[in-house]
Amino acid sequence: MKISTLSLGDEVIYGEIVDTNVAHIASRLYESGFLLRRHLCVGDNEPDIMDAIELLASHNDFVIATGGLGPTVDDLTARSAARATGRRLVLNEEALAHLRERYRLMGREMLPSTEKQALLPTKISLIPNPIGTACGFIIPHKGCFLFFLPGVPVEMKRMLDETVIPFILSRTKQKTCIETRVMRVLGLSETHVENRIKELARPREGLTIAYCVSFPEVEVKLRCEGDNEARTKELLDTTAEKVREQLGDHVVAEGGETIDTVVAALFREKRVTLSLAESCTGGLIAAKITDLPGSSAYFLEGAVTYSNETKTRRLQVPAELLEKEGAVSSATAMAMARGIRKASGSDIALAVTGIAGPEGGSEEKPVGTVFLALAGRSDCTAKRYQFSGDRERIRRMTAFTALDWLRRHLISLPDDEER
Amino acid sequence: MKISTLSLGDEVIYGEIVDTNVAHIASRLYESGFLLRRHLCVGDNEPDIMDAIELLASHNDFVIATGGLGPTVDDLTARSAARATGRRLVLNEEALAHLRERYRLMGREMLPSTEKQALLPTKISLIPNPIGTACGFIIPHKGCFLFFLPGVPVEMKRMLDETVIPFILSRTKQKTCIETRVMRVLGLSETHVENRIKELARPREGLTIAYCVSFPEVEVKLRCEGDNEARTKELLDTTAEKVREQLGDHVVAEGGETIDTVVAALFREKRVTLSLAESCTGGLIAAKITDLPGSSAYFLEGAVTYSNETKTRRLQVPAELLEKEGAVSSATAMAMARGIRKASGSDIALAVTGIAGPEGGSEEKPVGTVFLALAGRSDCTAKRYQFSGDRERIRRMTAFTALDWLRRHLISLPDDEER
Repeated sequence: MKISTLSLGDEVIYGEIVDTNVAHIASRLYESGFLLRRHLCVGDNEPDIMDAIELLASHNDFVIATGGLGPTVDDLTARSAARATGRRLVLNEEALAHLRERYRLMGREMLPSTEKQALLPTKISLIPNPIGTACGFIIPHKGCFLFFLPGVPVEMKRMLDETVIPFILSRTKQKTCIETRVMRVLGLSETHVENRIKELARPREGLTIAYCVSFPEVEVKLRCEGDNEARTKELLDTTAEKVREQLGDHVVAEGGETIDTVVAALFREKRVTLSLAESCTGGLIAAKITDLPGSSAYFLEGAVTYSNETKTRRLQVPAELLEKEGAVSSATAMAMARGIRKASGSDIALAVTGIAGPEGGSEEKPVGTVFLALAGRSDCTAKRYQFSGDRERIRRMTAFTALDWLRRHLISLPDDEER
Repeated sequence: MKISTLSLGDEVIYGEIVDTNVAHIASRLYESGFLLRRHLCVGDNEPDIMDAIELLASHNDFVIATGGLGPTVDDLTARSAARATGRRLVLNEEALAHLRERYRLMGREMLPSTEKQALLPTKISLIPNPIGTACGFIIPHKGCFLFFLPGVPVEMKRMLDETVIPFILSRTKQKTCIETRVMRVLGLSETHVENRIKELARPREGLTIAYCVSFPEVEVKLRCEGDNEARTKELLDTTAEKVREQLGDHVVAEGGETIDTVVAALFREKRVTLSLAESCTGGLIAAKITDLPGSSAYFLEGAVTYSNETKTRRLQVPAELLEKEGAVSSATAMAMARGIRKASGSDIALAVTGIAGPEGGSEEKPVGTVFLALAGRSDCTAKRYQFSGDRERIRRMTAFTALDWLRRHLISLPDDEER
């Protein structure tokens, strides 16, 4: 089964955006038991798009193309696909009806030029787009199925899952069954993760392990392929269990879960309320917590206290303490956590203070020095971390570490001493 | 001048990593006056790599390949490149000396298997790698120059800038000069932007306009190509000025700037201090503001007040007001802004309250209803918005709109009535 992808668009070719679509498609194909063979990318011009379609159609069973389905003049995909496959371009009534309905739902007026999005090749099947204006389409051509999807990631992902992958699965008689499992690991480097579990792979029995860094997490992907479904599942299950044993509580989430959703579920389950006091992360942790619907059930309050004066006024951190220990210190972190907990009346409070850089570091407290503190009704603990990288990396690492503290506290695990 | 790129590696094809190298290379080429023509990506297997090299070499003047130069068994680039171009693989003494020197500097012992990195095709020029172990190399083949670079972004970038781009420039007599300009537009759809300015394009005079949505912004890219540098620049300048006239204050940033950096610069320039009270965005605006170094100079405090009780306690929003008008209302937004401004002593304060969904909407105030308020020392204004999309889109749109309010307030422009 040969499957390739094609990205269309000047923004990719000009280096204006990093194309994340191919990684997502490759990853979803992999989970469905297919390997992506090639990925090709060309800009918004008809001869190049036509060449690319010709080239890929003649070497593959399926081609998944993304981009260039929008309403503007540089969206040339439909026209080029029609020419490359010897089709005419017609106003597709079904696509037009969809377009009108989307505009009606958005309460916006549809400009005549928008109709261009419904100008599609003849002899195609539409790919419904439940969340955007541009429909996708499937062209069967020279024994290959060409899928055309919008480049907008959120729309592309839905259409890939709802139409493209089921279509490919229905057209392929897979002799083998394939099961996959994904685990997200925090606090260990990729090499450390690999060293702990690589021996568990059984390539000859169809079980492989892949690693992928999504900073600061490492994603571990187990994949098992075999003729017998029950045996395949069992091998995957027992291996997953061994991976959990080896990686311990560094496994922060499995399957479709993330550390955010795991922490959210724990807060609801344990009926614990939270408040936050952030200095160097400046609201990032609160933003992550409130990114999930329903967070108002446990998240009472967040304070972003950048200045010393605000720390004192808002969180009752004593001015003498700030003077003596410094704003970036274990004592200040604890005072911040206690202060916000008392003010908000939450069950627990988490505070963070640190130096995200690039300025503000010293020999004693270099850039990347971060203190976290967690206060409960009667106890408070703090810990110093030394993170590395640029401002964004340090802030991101701090936010993930904070979420992991909450996770560990909620499941009553000891703090991670190995990090 | 035809230039294409080639990424080699299973990690790209399996969707394990997002390939950022191509965006960087394309962007650097663009800045040097070249357009990337195609990008191809294949996995770690010899026939596919050889096919890809053949294909690209026969259609391009220059090919920049990245990846697969490491010491492990799945690093097949050098061997495949040798076979594809009819060369033998030999131990390159210069590369070996470099490798030994790198290991000496790192104070690490070199394993015999590492020598593999110095096994390179015959008849090549080395590309020095000042910060890593693997040298790159240039193969002239059938009128095309093939560059091979490591996939590690930081090494690739150095080698691209120090060797590859100067090499390409020295081999090309550019007849034309190319100038570009990027503008970020907020508050108009891609179609509206295009309708207002598409007439300004002068393709026959070498001036083109491209559009790219980076939600909620639309990026407008002007590009002018011509023989005469002064004329090219002038045409671009006058067109940019006309674009500004047509899009007015919807142009929020130009060049390498973003709305975040523009707002940050305005706060510093005008010496104005800020505090924030966020409900539905839950810290997102504060996180964006503090994402930039130096924000502590003007950002005094942020309050994430999800519950009514917190709004009353922290921001002195009267309980009766919340009862009567609701937490999502113009009156509450104004009271929140006044409350945080008074408490923090900032010059201005911005507050946001709304329904990000998916729950919590009503007929009168559906999901996506958002109120923004801005309080100064003596005045306070609020406005209702109706955004659409999922929770993430609504929160993102709200954060950008809030930043745009700050921008408009700081440059003393009227609020945008057209949005």
